[in-house]
Amino acid sequence: MSLATPSTLPLIPDVPDLHDAALTARLQHLIDHKTKPLGALGQLESLALQLGQILGSEAPALRQPQMLVCAGDHGLAARGVSAYPADVTWQMVENFLAGGAAVSVLARQHGLALTVVDCGVRRDFEPRPDPVPGAPRLLLRKVAPGTADAVDGPAMTAAQCEQALRQGREVLAGLPGNTLLLGEMGIGNTSSASLLLAWASGRPVAECTGRGTGLDEPGVARKVAVLEQVMARHADIGRDQPLRALAAFGGFEVVTLVGAVLQAAAERRVVVVDGFITTAAVLLACELAPAVRQRCVFAHQSGERGHALMLQQLQAEPLLSLGLRLGEGSGAALAWPLLDSACRVLAEMASFESAGVSQQQA
Amino acid sequence: MSLATPSTLPLIPDVPDLHDAALTARLQHLIDHKTKPLGALGQLESLALQLGQILGSEAPALRQPQMLVCAGDHGLAARGVSAYPADVTWQMVENFLAGGAAVSVLARQHGLALTVVDCGVRRDFEPRPDPVPGAPRLLLRKVAPGTADAVDGPAMTAAQCEQALRQGREVLAGLPGNTLLLGEMGIGNTSSASLLLAWASGRPVAECTGRGTGLDEPGVARKVAVLEQVMARHADIGRDQPLRALAAFGGFEVVTLVGAVLQAAAERRVVVVDGFITTAAVLLACELAPAVRQRCVFAHQSGERGHALMLQQLQAEPLLSLGLRLGEGSGAALAWPLLDSACRVLAEMASFESAGVSQQQA
Repeated sequence: MSLATPSTLPLIPDVPDLHDAALTARLQHLIDHKTKPLGALGQLESLALQLGQILGSEAPALRQPQMLVCAGDHGLAARGVSAYPADVTWQMVENFLAGGAAVSVLARQHGLALTVVDCGVRRDFEPRPDPVPGAPRLLLRKVAPGTADAVDGPAMTAAQCEQALRQGREVLAGLPGNTLLLGEMGIGNTSSASLLLAWASGRPVAECTGRGTGLDEPGVARKVAVLEQVMARHADIGRDQPLRALAAFGGFEVVTLVGAVLQAAAERRVVVVDGFITTAAVLLACELAPAVRQRCVFAHQSGERGHALMLQQLQAEPLLSLGLRLGEGSGAALAWPLLDSACRVLAEMASFESAGVSQQQA
Repeated sequence: MSLATPSTLPLIPDVPDLHDAALTARLQHLIDHKTKPLGALGQLESLALQLGQILGSEAPALRQPQMLVCAGDHGLAARGVSAYPADVTWQMVENFLAGGAAVSVLARQHGLALTVVDCGVRRDFEPRPDPVPGAPRLLLRKVAPGTADAVDGPAMTAAQCEQALRQGREVLAGLPGNTLLLGEMGIGNTSSASLLLAWASGRPVAECTGRGTGLDEPGVARKVAVLEQVMARHADIGRDQPLRALAAFGGFEVVTLVGAVLQAAAERRVVVVDGFITTAAVLLACELAPAVRQRCVFAHQSGERGHALMLQQLQAEPLLSLGLRLGEGSGAALAWPLLDSACRVLAEMASFESAGVSQQQA
């Protein structure tokens, strides 16, 4: 099953700094001379600049965008940290593949190729025949059928963590195009994200923990109590040990996403970040290779408590704030047309000179 | 030139209340049983509900969306209320038609039919041959070559106001489809919008006035001083006299938009509202027929000072907040895919039952 990156290669790829002052100046000049008042397209202008920098072009073009949805189960789910039973992870993967989930609908709307990866779902999926072009695709990269209970020890071994990371890199390397959109599914995985945020930010876990898929107030209190136990169990993990933090807090889908993000960044692809879980993966990828941050476009701010803190930790300004708290990649897909718009503004808008429009009066 | 609604018809159409409790309940049931936690799609869910209510369907479908950009010049421009010379109005109309403006690029991206209306531009446009299908179209509905100086008297006569309003209704009635996106162009027209907001909200004009296309601080102070003169000149206009307010503060493009919005609402079309100027037109349309509000989707919150107040006045929660301050319809066009997504979520997402997914645990 495994097509993992040969273990002779370094676990963490080289992700160079994108800084190119000359290109940045040329892009800014282009943007400032479009037929609009200076800065009048707001965040769309900074997005256009960033896309140009990532793709190294004054006419960035997003080719064959790939929505990658990583799925896995969590040992912590047995402790009642979610409003849904763990079986929903595989049920929703089947729903993604059948085309009925939110991310399926939105990916279809925008022509995003959808790949779902079993990184560690408890149930096994039968391998599918190669789907027809354009249909969702399932990849089997299961590390184990769900992580271990993080209260009792690390969610996964160091070897499993490395395997998931390499598999994420390998999956990404096999995808075409220059743009990656991140998605995930895993009952219990807001717990992993909250733990990773608490570790990275040094904040109390209660500040990092929210309702997830819909816990009520007593449910959130129970979840916080469990996560406090986990944090206490792993209190010795230093801020300079991101791989230990990933192994301790999980899950397999998060670590696979970290690998995919690292590989995408190394290949200089645009990375479109979804909600709480995928932002946690990006947070950890940035710990492993800081220049990853330059490649990331943050699609939306989730309604999940903790996401605002996590975005702040990354100094990220998301494009949308629609009160979503679904994950799957739904927010990344909803923001997708804005990236397309930013590229089109650069490529297609006239300049004052070309359109014969008078500039601002002195 | 005029194909105005026969003046025997009432100036303000009947806009019935959309309230349909049974349909609303059916839509909410559909949304709540999609495969996602309750409310997890945030504002997309309330948008889906609203679109269903407007179009009177559990499967609302947006057909042949029309981007209507109304243009006109303003007598006040001569007093230096804008950072750009008045000639930019017609220059930008030519840019819209040539395909080089932001709204041209975004309309093309999303397949929105673009109609530009000369409602009162100072320069005359030559009538164009019928454009090829899909290309932008120019309609000549000029009331006069620019409004009068509102410091000296009303920006337009009552007869001109009525003509612009009827022409807006007639233009809209001639457009296909069930969805209208609003846009505008007019050097000086943030002044009209600020004045209309000050009139409708009772707030000091300074609170309602911003940088427009890019005035510096002294420029804003000069603009406020001019607008205070205008408000003083027209202080006798009561809160129950919206037509007098429209005539006093202008412009022709704003009043034409009011007519188009009223007609769209009467025909039960979805109205997608852009920035500060088109929201002012909607504010006045709601004064004339309050149920217009039910048909309005607010695309974005502009960076222009006063827009937040105006949205508050309308109890509107915009979809985007990207710091845009361009107008033209650019914000409405950028939000368009979200409306499409809301319809697709209703039509295409599986239910828990149909997908065999377990529901939330008690």
